[in-house]
Amino acid sequence: MTEVLLRGGTPWGADGPADVLVRDGRIATDPVDPAVIDISGQFVLPALVEAHCHLDKTLYGGPWIPHSADDTLAGRIGNDLSRRAELGVPSEARIAALLRTMRSYGTAHVRSHTDIDPEVGLRGVEAVSAAAAEVGMPVQQVAFPQHGVLTNPGTLDLLEEALKSGVAAIGGLDPAGIDRDPVRHLDLIFALADRYGAFLDIHLHDGGTLGAWELELIAERTRALGLGGRVTVSHAYALGQVDDAHQDRLAAVLADAGVALATAAVYSFPVPPLKRVLDAGVVVACGHDGIRDLWGPYGSGDMLERAMHLAYRSTFRRDEDIALALRAATYGGAEVLGLADYGLSVGCRADLVVVPVSSAAEAVVTRPPRTLVMISGKVVHSLVSEGGGVLHN
Amino acid sequence: MTEVLLRGGTPWGADGPADVLVRDGRIATDPVDPAVIDISGQFVLPALVEAHCHLDKTLYGGPWIPHSADDTLAGRIGNDLSRRAELGVPSEARIAALLRTMRSYGTAHVRSHTDIDPEVGLRGVEAVSAAAAEVGMPVQQVAFPQHGVLTNPGTLDLLEEALKSGVAAIGGLDPAGIDRDPVRHLDLIFALADRYGAFLDIHLHDGGTLGAWELELIAERTRALGLGGRVTVSHAYALGQVDDAHQDRLAAVLADAGVALATAAVYSFPVPPLKRVLDAGVVVACGHDGIRDLWGPYGSGDMLERAMHLAYRSTFRRDEDIALALRAATYGGAEVLGLADYGLSVGCRADLVVVPVSSAAEAVVTRPPRTLVMISGKVVHSLVSEGGGVLHN
Repeated sequence: MTEVLLRGGTPWGADGPADVLVRDGRIATDPVDPAVIDISGQFVLPALVEAHCHLDKTLYGGPWIPHSADDTLAGRIGNDLSRRAELGVPSEARIAALLRTMRSYGTAHVRSHTDIDPEVGLRGVEAVSAAAAEVGMPVQQVAFPQHGVLTNPGTLDLLEEALKSGVAAIGGLDPAGIDRDPVRHLDLIFALADRYGAFLDIHLHDGGTLGAWELELIAERTRALGLGGRVTVSHAYALGQVDDAHQDRLAAVLADAGVALATAAVYSFPVPPLKRVLDAGVVVACGHDGIRDLWGPYGSGDMLERAMHLAYRSTFRRDEDIALALRAATYGGAEVLGLADYGLSVGCRADLVVVPVSSAAEAVVTRPPRTLVMISGKVVHSLVSEGGGVLHN
Repeated sequence: MTEVLLRGGTPWGADGPADVLVRDGRIATDPVDPAVIDISGQFVLPALVEAHCHLDKTLYGGPWIPHSADDTLAGRIGNDLSRRAELGVPSEARIAALLRTMRSYGTAHVRSHTDIDPEVGLRGVEAVSAAAAEVGMPVQQVAFPQHGVLTNPGTLDLLEEALKSGVAAIGGLDPAGIDRDPVRHLDLIFALADRYGAFLDIHLHDGGTLGAWELELIAERTRALGLGGRVTVSHAYALGQVDDAHQDRLAAVLADAGVALATAAVYSFPVPPLKRVLDAGVVVACGHDGIRDLWGPYGSGDMLERAMHLAYRSTFRRDEDIALALRAATYGGAEVLGLADYGLSVGCRADLVVVPVSSAAEAVVTRPPRTLVMISGKVVHSLVSEGGGVLHN
């Protein structure tokens, strides 16, 4: 039995300071003879959840690669296809470097969309799996048809192959805008997800009334197949573009069907109206999207920074509003990933982040160095000084 | 004579590594017997310029203050007026703390909009002046009618009083949206600026065709009074809202009149189309707007981070585009502030920032710790290690 007592910190959601006991990797009660770590005056969060990234594409940890695509989606797709071999993408070393950085910032769980296409096959899936195993970090992969399903023959078979190989989720991509046949695209990927009991996570950049209508198609299929709680729409720019009444109608439809949203609040693209969809009962998760890759040079791996972007683009100023962005980067992501035993309650897995702030809002706004990161009860990152800090039994 | 040679770095704009000699506070040539600082493999920028902030309002360096205003402009103004006394705003200590942080990030020059109104009088101006003197950092103040000119009797006299006391610039605020009489508002503040040879820097949040028309009014008065090069419009959301052809027409009008823009790329508010206005010849500067104050909790004081927000909201991915945001945070700001001897050329004041990156774009995207900050040839911040680094004569 190993016991650690985090003493004097304030867990998120508690009324004030409350010690957190960790025993055998879980949050527990009734300490016997714990090692004590003094975190007085600090704030305790459940580990961060990166719910939407593209690990397989990353160039993280290598030299600066100037962005070489033109400013069109077709240009970015073509540039990606033409340069990934030259740059050694996917790279287990780059992915592992990024995962280590994510973990040092307090991320314990990751959902990553991995490119699947006839050229790259399942090499991306294998590279991400290998890196995750190397680092010892759980990564839930979405087999992602980045270059289309119907428009890229052979991809559908690869999605099924990925599922057979154990991938937990499959993706979709702009069923109308990219794949040109939204009904058939969605019918195919929903059928696959249903057959294999997989999660479904669909990229939807299609905007305005087109994207809004596709959200309805997705909700209809989720209800019809009883897949509520297992389907996520990523980006969903359309939700940030239609008028308020339309947003409300769509939010109700999504909540009723059990379709979640994942947002990254990237660049100047529309952000789904966070408070409005949460009020309707929609689960919302948060992620980086690309991190230092051929699609764009930005991204640090720090989910507190990502939550800041989400709060900032949502024009949230009040503490309780800013905290909603952090909920997306923690509890919302955990729900989308289907994590059991997530949180700060007794019995939960001891995946914790300690930060030198007084509130969730301050954590998001200031993104301070992490004082302590604990995964499954093990300290994986620590700034606690020898003297005032960790006392090992 | 004091001489320091920064050896082995790559100055921004140079083709490759080039030593930078600093003599008696200026960039020089022909070293005699300099102390040498090895910055091999690093990148040299001119000091950052914060061209739009509100130092007098800041709560920086104090405990976290949850945002207490409601989500309306009237709510924020009322909240500001009612709470500033309780929180000790303006505070010389808070302002000085923020200036020190800004300097440690490499900012050497600041333009700050200081509230002027019958209640606070010139106390804000005095607090900012005192803090600037305490820290030894130049701050160009804009006497700013935050609560209106025509709608707040007594403010116009205070603007004049501020100019008489030596403030370099006066401001304006939404001549239509807030002050309800754009022609009279602008005529009054232009006349004052003209009479005292002051800079003029006008907050313009008014959107769409209303804000666009006010930009025309501002350009007309700038031309008529020959004030080109001395007038700035801050925010100018309207420029990001009208259609492309209208943007082009306005950009040409502003460039022709010599009206500059300052943008902060805050929240989800519209950002002027940076490439388009630069192509037309408009000078663009960058700043934080508020930093940790009653108007909003965000802001770090790091102008590389601010440049990131500007690049990100501009959806800039390519190095040469991202560099435009950094130009706004350096050369653009210097031009708006009317700084002589700014830059990396021989004879310029040695205000320099050294960062461990390979390019301007990488500096903006990664916002690394500053290796060295030098102001007027003096090292004010340094991470250079004793052994491999600074050799003092």
